Amino acid sequence: MRTLTTIEEMRAFVRDARSQGKSIGFVPTMGALHAGHLSLIRRAKEKSDVVVVSIFVNPTQFGPSEDLEAYPRDMAADQQKCRDEQVDAIFAPAVNEMYPQENLTWVNVESLTDKLCGRSRPGHFRGVTTVCTKLFNIVQPDYAFFGQKDGQQAIVIKRMVADLNMPLQIVVCDTVREPDGLAMSSRNKYLTPEQRQDAPLIYKSLAAARDAVDQGERSTEKVKQTIQSVLAESQEIEPEYINIVDLDTLSELPQIQGKALIAIAAKLGTARLIDNIIVDANTQK
Amino acid sequence: MRTLTTIEEMRAFVRDARSQGKSIGFVPTMGALHAGHLSLIRRAKEKSDVVVVSIFVNPTQFGPSEDLEAYPRDMAADQQKCRDEQVDAIFAPAVNEMYPQENLTWVNVESLTDKLCGRSRPGHFRGVTTVCTKLFNIVQPDYAFFGQKDGQQAIVIKRMVADLNMPLQIVVCDTVREPDGLAMSSRNKYLTPEQRQDAPLIYKSLAAARDAVDQGERSTEKVKQTIQSVLAESQEIEPEYINIVDLDTLSELPQIQGKALIAIAAKLGTARLIDNIIVDANTQK
Repeated sequence: MRTLTTIEEMRAFVRDARSQGKSIGFVPTMGALHAGHLSLIRRAKEKSDVVVVSIFVNPTQFGPSEDLEAYPRDMAADQQKCRDEQVDAIFAPAVNEMYPQENLTWVNVESLTDKLCGRSRPGHFRGVTTVCTKLFNIVQPDYAFFGQKDGQQAIVIKRMVADLNMPLQIVVCDTVREPDGLAMSSRNKYLTPEQRQDAPLIYKSLAAARDAVDQGERSTEKVKQTIQSVLAESQEIEPEYINIVDLDTLSELPQIQGKALIAIAAKLGTARLIDNIIVDANTQK
Repeated sequence: MRTLTTIEEMRAFVRDARSQGKSIGFVPTMGALHAGHLSLIRRAKEKSDVVVVSIFVNPTQFGPSEDLEAYPRDMAADQQKCRDEQVDAIFAPAVNEMYPQENLTWVNVESLTDKLCGRSRPGHFRGVTTVCTKLFNIVQPDYAFFGQKDGQQAIVIKRMVADLNMPLQIVVCDTVREPDGLAMSSRNKYLTPEQRQDAPLIYKSLAAARDAVDQGERSTEKVKQTIQSVLAESQEIEPEYINIVDLDTLSELPQIQGKALIAIAAKLGTARLIDNIIVDANTQK
């Protein structure tokens, strides 16, 4: 496995793979790899001949009061995990390599990015879509792999790829969870032991919402109340939003008909955690 | 020569060329091809194995009061010109093929697009950069060719390609002029015979500006006065802007030191014409 730090090296690696007729799978990450990332890598290994993992804590997707400095970084551990998964190359550029001059060009997906996390994180998705465009242009993958945990991000990226005719396919992989249901996240490291004990309530509340929908509840207000009552079991959890939205537009739904995304963001101490599930009112158990 | 109208056909054509190890040169146009476009095509033929010309009057770069409907279209004549130049493929998609659903994703180059033509054409460059991104993603060229006549556009596109690490090289080709100096433009068709007689004053004023700089004039105010006095020879010409700007930032310069872009936009009846030259205070005649 090679660790490449310059765009030029990365392009040469890709040219070489292409000239051998190999397909390229790409897993963009901010490092601090956990089992969720590893599931993306495994899916990439299945679908493509060569797998590239990028490790880049992208400054343009962090707001001024967010955790850019604190964000966990552990390149040696990440390299070992990638080696174990038989990743072909890590792309780990410095910030100056990715942003050598003032960045004037931004890719923005309107409307979808104003909702859910976009409300409290202005500019976040613009940073994500811009850096993904840059990385896609450097790695030129056939497939790029994203986790359903960042559900809004997956929908935004898929829309960007469609609108801009980007020559790759986005593959969204199921959320990987701890045995107690907590969605894997690099930000789980911020939790104190007490907060960690309460954190699974987020998924527990989503599971309760799914049960309610499966039992015929169609009112989003009622489903939200179910979620709120579960989250209220912890005094540490401060919900930022609980939204039940259309999967294409991310607009809030008054009633659940067909598929819907139920998404939560909550503060737990210094950690801001997100999780979501997709429910389908047409396939009751 | 093939004329392709779907993205799928275009992608298949590109895949085929690539699999034969051929380089691809791309000339994006809005059709109504004139000698300026043909010079881009010839440059593309020199530099690349396969040449693709797109013909697409892109609605997203026209303002609501602009000439989208009136813009000249003549596919049969354009095809004949491309055939004569041994173009390999024309990509001529319908609007629905390029924008099959509401376009939510925009590529925007900040700052550079607020200046010069950006002042009177809000949203124009956002439309240009977005459609060029789409076309680049579809055609996946090694080189794309733009004319210096649209000087701000060339600078904006080059910055976009650099900022977003797009895997292609932008080649900017000299402005092609009528024997009397008028820059070739599809919009010259809007001119009445009388306006056509006055139109060369735009380039004449730029040539006078170059002479002044060559003779040591460094004050942009003085150079602008020279331009204005030439343009005033016609009562039909209404200047929209006369700007002397930095080649990288497009910011207005108080003094000419080193290279500068001298750019003019002017109305002549219903036609809005633009032209520009690059001067260099360090290489006096």
